[in-house]
Parts: sequence; C-alpha cells; structure tokens
Amino acid sequence: MDLNSDLGEGFGTWRLGDDTAMLDVVSSANIACGFHAGDPRTLLATCERAVATGVVIGAQVGYRDLAGFGRRFIDYETPDLVADVIYQLGALDGLARAAGDRVLYVKPHGALYNTIVHHEQQAAAVVDAVRRYDPDLPVLGLPGSVFLHLADEAGLRTVREAFADRGYHPDGTLVSRRDPGALLHDPAEVADRMLRLVTDRTLVAVDGTVIKVEADSICVHGDSPGAVGMARAVHAKLTAAGIPITSFAGSGS
Amino acid sequence: MDLNSDLGEGFGTWRLGDDTAMLDVVSSANIACGFHAGDPRTLLATCERAVATGVVIGAQVGYRDLAGFGRRFIDYETPDLVADVIYQLGALDGLARAAGDRVLYVKPHGALYNTIVHHEQQAAAVVDAVRRYDPDLPVLGLPGSVFLHLADEAGLRTVREAFADRGYHPDGTLVSRRDPGALLHDPAEVADRMLRLVTDRTLVAVDGTVIKVEADSICVHGDSPGAVGMARAVHAKLTAAGIPITSFAGSGS
Amino acid sequence: MDLNSDLGEGFGTWRLGDDTAMLDVVSSANIACGFHAGDPRTLLATCERAVATGVVIGAQVGYRDLAGFGRRFIDYETPDLVADVIYQLGALDGLARAAGDRVLYVKPHGALYNTIVHHEQQAAAVVDAVRRYDPDLPVLGLPGSVFLHLADEAGLRTVREAFADRGYHPDGTLVSRRDPGALLHDPAEVADRMLRLVTDRTLVAVDGTVIKVEADSICVHGDSPGAVGMARAVHAKLTAAGIPITSFAGSGS
Amino acid sequence: MDLNSDLGEGFGTWRLGDDTAMLDVVSSANIACGFHAGDPRTLLATCERAVATGVVIGAQVGYRDLAGFGRRFIDYETPDLVADVIYQLGALDGLARAAGDRVLYVKPHGALYNTIVHHEQQAAAVVDAVRRYDPDLPVLGLPGSVFLHLADEAGLRTVREAFADRGYHPDGTLVSRRDPGALLHDPAEVADRMLRLVTDRTLVAVDGTVIKVEADSICVHGDSPGAVGMARAVHAKLTAAGIPITSFAGSGS
Repeated sequence: MDLNSDLGEGFGTWRLGDDTAMLDVVSSANIACGFHAGDPRTLLATCERAVATGVVIGAQVGYRDLAGFGRRFIDYETPDLVADVIYQLGALDGLARAAGDRVLYVKPHGALYNTIVHHEQQAAAVVDAVRRYDPDLPVLGLPGSVFLHLADEAGLRTVREAFADRGYHPDGTLVSRRDPGALLHDPAEVADRMLRLVTDRTLVAVDGTVIKVEADSICVHGDSPGAVGMARAVHAKLTAAGIPITSFAGSGS
Repeated sequence: MDLNSDLGEGFGTWRLGDDTAMLDVVSSANIACGFHAGDPRTLLATCERAVATGVVIGAQVGYRDLAGFGRRFIDYETPDLVADVIYQLGALDGLARAAGDRVLYVKPHGALYNTIVHHEQQAAAVVDAVRRYDPDLPVLGLPGSVFLHLADEAGLRTVREAFADRGYHPDGTLVSRRDPGALLHDPAEVADRMLRLVTDRTLVAVDGTVIKVEADSICVHGDSPGAVGMARAVHAKLTAAGIPITSFAGSGS
Repeated sequence: MDLNSDLGEGFGTWRLGDDTAMLDVVSSANIACGFHAGDPRTLLATCERAVATGVVIGAQVGYRDLAGFGRRFIDYETPDLVADVIYQLGALDGLARAAGDRVLYVKPHGALYNTIVHHEQQAAAVVDAVRRYDPDLPVLGLPGSVFLHLADEAGLRTVREAFADRGYHPDGTLVSRRDPGALLHDPAEVADRMLRLVTDRTLVAVDGTVIKVEADSICVHGDSPGAVGMARAVHAKLTAAGIPITSFAGSGS
Repeated sequence: MDLNSDLGEGFGTWRLGDDTAMLDVVSSANIACGFHAGDPRTLLATCERAVATGVVIGAQVGYRDLAGFGRRFIDYETPDLVADVIYQLGALDGLARAAGDRVLYVKPHGALYNTIVHHEQQAAAVVDAVRRYDPDLPVLGLPGSVFLHLADEAGLRTVREAFADRGYHPDGTLVSRRDPGALLHDPAEVADRMLRLVTDRTLVAVDGTVIKVEADSICVHGDSPGAVGMARAVHAKLTAAGIPITSFAGSGS
C-alpha cells in the first residue's frame, strides 16, 4: 500500500509541517509547485530529500493563490487552468530532475482537488494539462470523482485515494469539516481503520455502516505533531501486518 | 546569422510588444518564464506560435519581480537564484513540450543579464542552474562577460550576442542608456551596421573607431512599432545579402 | 450627471487604457488599488493627475488576483474579504492624501462587482469593510443589487450606476457578454441613450421595450481608442443639452 | 523606555513568531504592511490585539518581496520606493483605524532598514514618503544612520533604537551576523545590558570597551521561544528597576 502526504508547503521564510519526519513515513510525496505554496529553493531541497530517502515525487498542482494557500475556489477559464497546471508540472519536474529523479504522478491540491470532484470544466482542464505534459503520468484523486472518471476516459492511469483521518458517509463521500465526525483523532483507531481498509477494502462510516472503499493510496497528514504521530501509527500498523509501504509509481522505495 | 528577440512579455490582461510580427522576423525567441513577465497561458500560446513559425524557443529567466519587470537588481542568495532559475527553465520547458518542441537555449533577462556581466556569485548561480537542468543547453550572453566565461569553464556552449540598436564604446562595451549615442533610431543605418557586423566582424563605435565584435546572434527588439520596423530592416538587409537567418540551436527554422 | 471610469489599471511596465484622455471626460475616477491592477507608482501618478484635473477619486477594490485582473470569482472567507477591502481602501487613500485629496467613494471591480449583485456573504463583507473604514464613503453599484441593498441598510450612501455601452434586459439587468446585444458600438447611439437616460430616466431594452432606469452615475470605458471616443460622445451630448458633468461626491470638479 | 518588536509577520496560512506573547511585553508593535509579510486579515487581527493590549501601532514598511521576506536588497527607482512606502503606510493605517487606533510611527524592515543606514537615495525616498503621508509620524532607525539624519533634516521626529540581543563594535555599529559576537543568547546578560543602557547610556562592545549609546527604544525579538523569554527578561529587569515600559508615541500604554 502507498502512503502519500503533502510536502514542500513552506514559502520563503515560512515553514509548514515536518517534511523530514514525513519522508521517513510515506512512499509518495505530493510536493507543492509554487502556486499555492513552495518557493523554488524549498521545493528543490524537498525533492533532494525525497530522492535521498527513496520517496517518489508527485506534483501537487494548485490554484495561483499564495494568500489563500490554494484553498479558495477560483473560477478559472479553461485555457488559464490548462496552462497553469502545465507550468507547475514543468517547474517541479525541472527541480526533480535537478535532484536526480522526476515527477512520477500528479495530485491536485486543496480547493482544486475538491472542485474537480464534481466540476466538469476544471476536471477536464486538469486532465488535458496532464495529458499534454506527459500522458504516462498517473493522477491521484477521490474514487468516484469526475476528475478520475475523465482521466480514465482520456487514457491516464488513475490512483484512488483514501484519507486516514477523515470520517466517511455511507455513500463513500467524506464528512464535511463543518460536521461532527469529520476528523478522527486517535492514532490507534486510525491505524486500525487503515489496516481494515487494506485487508478488507471496508471502512466503518459515521453512522456505523460498513462500506466498501477501494483505495490504491492512503493520504496521511504531517502539518502538526499529532498528525506526524498518526501517520507513523498507520505506517507501523501496516508494516507489522506484513503490508509493505511502497509507491504505486515506478521508481522510489 | 541568428536573430533573437524577447517575447511572451505580457501578463494576464496586459500585453507588451507584437509577438506575432516578431515571430516572422527572428529565428530565436527569448520567451519569458513567469517571474518578471509571462502568465502561463500567454507563454503556452507564444510557444505554440513559435513552433508554428519554426522559431527556436529559448528560456528568458529573470528575477522574481513582476512589479519591476525584472529590471531591478536583487541581491539573491545563491541557493535561491539557482532554484529560481531551474524552476523557470522547467516551467517554460513544460509549456514548450506541450507545444511540441522544447527549450533549446537560455538567455537571462534585464537586471539579471546586466548583473552577471560582472557579478561572479550570480553568474555562477545561473551557470550552475543551467548545468543542473540540462548541460546541453547553450547560454546566450554578452561577449566578455563573467557569465559566458564561467559558462564556458563549466562546459556549457556559449552564444555571443550583439545588439542591433545599441551604441558601442571602443572597448566593445555598450554605451549606457543614460549617455548620448546609446540608442540608434534609423532602421537603414542599423541594418547596414548589422550587415557589416556579420560580414566584417566590425562595428563603428561612438567615437568613430572601427572595433572588432564577435557575435553569434543579433538581438532585435519588438516592443514598439518602430522597433518591429527596425527588426524587419535588419532581416531584409541580411537576407538580401545572401545571409540566411537561422538559429544557432539544433531545431527550428 | 456623473461620469465614472476605471483608471490606474496598469501594473509596473504594463499600461492599460488612456488615463490622461479619460481624465478630461469623467467626473469620477475609479482608481485600482493594487490587488487586481495598479502598482503604487502608477496609482500615485493617477491620483495626482486626477487632483490636477479636478476629478474625484474613488477606490476600485477587487479580488487579490493580478493574473486574472480581478475578473475571476474567488470564494473568499468573510474575514479575508473584509480585511482585503479595508487594506485596499487605506492604501489608495494614503496615495490620494499624498496627492492632495482623498478617496471619496468606493466601487468594487470586475468579478467582485458582479458577484455582490447577488452574493449575500461577499456583499455584506464589502459593506462591513467600507463601514469600518469610513461610514461616510458612498458606494457605487448596480441598481437592485444585494450590495446596494445591504449598504443602504447599513446606513451607507448608495450611488446607482448605468452602463453607457451595455444592452439591458426588460427587467433592468444587463445582457450577458455572451449574448447578442450585450455591447453597443455606435458612439452617437450610445450618447443618445444616455441623454434619454438622464432626461427621461428610461432606456430601450434589447427587445425594444422602454424601461425605467434610475442612475446617479454613468460608467464609460477608456481601455480602447473607440471607448475613449464613445466616452467623449456621451460627455459632449450631455453638456450640449445643458447637463453638467459633475461628481456625486463632495469635492472635485 | 520603549520596547519595540516586529509583529504581524505571517502570511495566509503561514505563522511567524508569537504575537500574543509579545504584545504583553512590548509598548510598540512594528506591524508588517503586506509587502514583505502580512496578509490583511492577519494585520487587522494584529492591530486589534495591539489596541486591546494598549500597544502602540507602527508601520513596518519593506521591499515588495514576499519570497525573500524583504531581506534582499532591491535596487528601486526613487518614485517606486516613495509610492510603495506611502501605499504600505496607508494600507496599515486603514487597518489600524478599523481597529480603533492609527499608525503612530514608521520603522523600515529588513534589507530596507539596513540599506538606508548608508544609501542616500533610498533613505531620502523613505523620508519623502513619510513626509508626504504624514509629517507628524516619528521614524525609528539606527542612531547615526543616513536615514535618521535625512529625516531630521526634513523635520521628522526621529527615534533612535538599540538592539537587545546584538553585539556592538566600539564605534557603535552592530557586529555583522557573520562575525563572532553578533548575537547574545543569555537572557540575564541581555537584561543587564539593557538596564545599563537605560540608566548609564553605555554598553560593553565586543572588544570590552565601554561605549556611549543613545537610544529612545529597545528592539526585542519574538520569533522563537528563546526570543520571547529574552524579551520578557528585559521587560522584567527594567520594570523591577522602576523604569516604566512605555511608548515614545502619543497614545497606547
């Protein structure tokens, strides 16, 4: 099973999350590309550390919105979104190549990620950008999303992702952060859930229902001390059960 | 002989220069990379037009300074400048690849160009960035500059550039824009000078001295109607003399 | 009657529109505040020219989006939008004071303008920002908009605006730019419409219906040679009919 | 004696320093203005907390350089620097007014602060900007700097600042951060030095010499846990010696 996490999310003098700690936990690094976070020096250093620890580099493309950290919906015109995504892919790929590897997958960030779960125009724009940049790059997204559906139709490899610390509705969608049960806080419980996800392909939804969830990768967070501990708990639980933590992509650990 | 010009220098709603006109004149397009100018949509469209007209794409890397158009010296730390240049190279290369070609040379812009004529630390940073990104990329710069000297030492191919509309001192340096004789305005005179440059490797300096100038490329400007006319005059004069306008780089026209 | 136009919309090296020409036509200048357009040097110079020509200075606040020129909807959180608007008001007011006058009204720009025609949360945020900055500042907006309604409720003075070159539906809303009849191109026709608007409070809608339109200000554009000509035609028609062009705000011409 | 510290230095999702802790220690808050740090929401909240704790608000103006945190010299043209400073002053003043107070002094930040110790053109530009914005605003700077000299000549009130945790040369200049003795780390020693500074107007320089230092304000830092502790030690030592911590400016605590 693959573990992925968001990295390289500082900007200039500002730091966010413990990238060094997380690179010992995950097999895939969703590295920011400079539009919602990530100055080039931070990004290059993050790529170099990912290469040194055998973690696969993915491009976490986002809206051009440093002030909003890419978490605000922006109503892009299609040609702007296509070009912004290609630009970010090329930029991070350049840094990854300078670090001795390359970008091996794409994961949209924040509001772009959430928007293309259902927004056809923007989903199609991201798919088009990836296809034009490199049709062999897998894309990571939410199972059932318009994004993965369009990516699949366009011939891109799709990677379905589950969230370690998020509550699920019986229909497989995530509980909104504004509602109770959205976030799980107990590392042991989260680790148990993820083991069950991997071995049984099931999760317990907020209402107690057991639901089917197909995932090729698990997203863990690392932007708080508690989050790093939770990520480590998931990693330990899976490896103890004989499940190797290894990327879905070609190179890396 | 190669003719090069700065292109893709708009940003969002703002336009600068007549890129379409210039792509019919030059053999090499120094396309902005987004840090001093150039939003991704404009850059992608410029790359596509360059490909359509057989003009070679070069990356015009600059300081991160949209408000100053990259024309103000910034006292970068080395790791920041190295990473900013790699990021820009990768970004434009990504757009160029999506347009069906790739970046085939590098030309620094504005204050960065002028600074690395003499500034060792920044010149070395740019050289290091190009070398790390792709050691086969030629770099375009001022003959005699620290930049070309260090690039040559690092094993990069160097391309020496002359300026069609600028006055020269007897020692081969440019007359400062603040001094008389800095800018030439007569298209016929400029075209004559450039023909002489190509055929005799000489120019007449501001004091009347005939000086030796070795150039592999001629820079023409296109950001005003008069500038486009001057560029066309140089193109016409050279081709009428049987000198083909063709890039120093491998692909393109 | 007041004529208003968007000014100060360049950024750094990039220019947009003929501010000098428009300052001879309008009585109110909607000057950008740096978030969608307008570097401080341009803004200060625009304020100085406005003061010199006796044109009233208004703050045209917008989304933080230089790349999109403030024309893309952004899903702001309320405290961010309140603070962004106050920041812009203060910034332009500082420049206006340095130029010898001050900001005398507020007009939202682009996608923010269009959004708060109907978007309660953002409309309330803009109203709250103006009220907190200076409750004596009038706000300019579309008649019937949620924005003007909430502003009125909050005790702000509201100024209703008509658009010289736009087609209207029978219900008084604007024809979308994607539909036929959205834009009027004939200066004489536009001038006649505006004279009728001022004298009769009526306009002919796209379907030929005569509709009632109450306006305290007319918006004219100046970002193309044709637009300047149209603005001049409106100015000439109204003044020839004995209608003075004068601002709704206290100072200025 | 006044204690001042840099506050409001986050940007969007990124935090820097413990503003809440420092507002209990200092009498003057140098609040960022958005060009090197500080999104408007953070700045407004910081102004509101300063007002609530009776701390005087100052504008910490800087270069337009978020990626470099204003710590890199930029070779500004004079009209750009004048306008950038006025813009920042107005913006923060707007937020301060919305918070119930106003900007009561100006302190340049980072590379701008260091540059105008000796750089006449930029020092004059900052002085000109403050004078044009409000000639009653005091400016805070290094004793002996060109900036304070020109400010004094222009009729501005000048406030001389000492640094609690920095080593001094016998001539009263600061030891460069690259040399030994640049930074002091022991809170008790720093507190003793500052008490001596206030009572005797002397400090012990790096070579052991006792030197005369005239200061109207002491700069303490708060961007690390140790720094907050050191600031508290200075505050405790001075107040225990009967020296009130109170701003040089009119309002506040």
